[in-house]
Amino acid sequence: MTLEIPEVVINRLPVYARALAQLAEAGETVVSSQALGEALDVTPAQIRKDLSYFGRFGKQGRGYNVPTLLAKLREILGLDRRWRVCIVGVGRLGQAIVEYGGFEPQGFTIMSAFDSDSELVGTSIADVEIRHVDELQSYLAETRIDIGIVSVPGRVAQETVDELVKGGIRAILNYAPITAHVPPGVSIRHIDPVLAMQSMTFYLKRPAGVVAIRE
Amino acid sequence: MTLEIPEVVINRLPVYARALAQLAEAGETVVSSQALGEALDVTPAQIRKDLSYFGRFGKQGRGYNVPTLLAKLREILGLDRRWRVCIVGVGRLGQAIVEYGGFEPQGFTIMSAFDSDSELVGTSIADVEIRHVDELQSYLAETRIDIGIVSVPGRVAQETVDELVKGGIRAILNYAPITAHVPPGVSIRHIDPVLAMQSMTFYLKRPAGVVAIRE
Repeated sequence: MTLEIPEVVINRLPVYARALAQLAEAGETVVSSQALGEALDVTPAQIRKDLSYFGRFGKQGRGYNVPTLLAKLREILGLDRRWRVCIVGVGRLGQAIVEYGGFEPQGFTIMSAFDSDSELVGTSIADVEIRHVDELQSYLAETRIDIGIVSVPGRVAQETVDELVKGGIRAILNYAPITAHVPPGVSIRHIDPVLAMQSMTFYLKRPAGVVAIRE
Repeated sequence: MTLEIPEVVINRLPVYARALAQLAEAGETVVSSQALGEALDVTPAQIRKDLSYFGRFGKQGRGYNVPTLLAKLREILGLDRRWRVCIVGVGRLGQAIVEYGGFEPQGFTIMSAFDSDSELVGTSIADVEIRHVDELQSYLAETRIDIGIVSVPGRVAQETVDELVKGGIRAILNYAPITAHVPPGVSIRHIDPVLAMQSMTFYLKRPAGVVAIRE
């Protein structure tokens, strides 16, 4: 498979997969790129172009076969298997992440949690045992973990990311309020609701009717 | 002010502001676009272009004055004032959001919470009183709220967004796992850690060294 695929395309695929799963659940078997685009605020041309990186789906004027395209996207994205996750930092935010019920049904299992607070070490949250961060390297050497979640304070977030990368982790979900860096070959995604709100207050300051330009 | 500013530019400004705030806290007074770019994984040219929408900052070869640029960005983004937030849906996720300590220090105050569960109505989370969703319209008619957070189940997320928009809300932070739609003049941002993880498993399935193309 050619891998000259823009990151923005990869980032849209899970959104397509989610919409197709909802259509499949509703018993729909065919969907047009127009209908899918309207549901997702994406142009039909964008959908067709994004999917064209991965082969030919659907026929002109016939739409996409929902189960077929969904299965293909799940295979491309690796959603057809389970992924093993560890989390570093189980303060208030980290605890909420561990207790959040939304990961497991999507194939992401939180296997273990790490913290530097000795009062937390040895206790459990939602059946996930909390270990000391000093054990992270030896744990990662012995245990297959695919994705690391970082929910430590900002001042120690980069070193936490570095430790995960050192332990062989190639995908990191970062909740800490910093732009953390990873070497080539490692993916990172940032989850930051404060930044999201701050990008909306720009528009709130301006008269109603002022809208963003989408490039 | 001209408003032909791409949404992606607006979305980057809070990241710049956060980095400048950290530099200011560290006592730095000048930063080059090179140094800022390296810290944020953005090219210096991108930073200069983004800022050029809002005027002239810094001089060639002299770098940016950190406090001046930070103050200007805070003013552009509206971070120099407080914003009033309500949340609809205080199940497990919503409760974690209300209890999360990261909004208040950044100027976002959760004023009120709404749910349809009569057992929750009348109770409080972190001093925020929970009201019945049936009261949402009358509440919004009487109370200034700037931003609505949606953390209801996916099947009722679009109608919740519609209710907030009907009540005059122009900025929505959506945690529900759907692509919710808003009319022109209303901003929406989606927070979805599952989608973020799903976009990384694409790379995990492939050999180490395969990297994304950034357009």
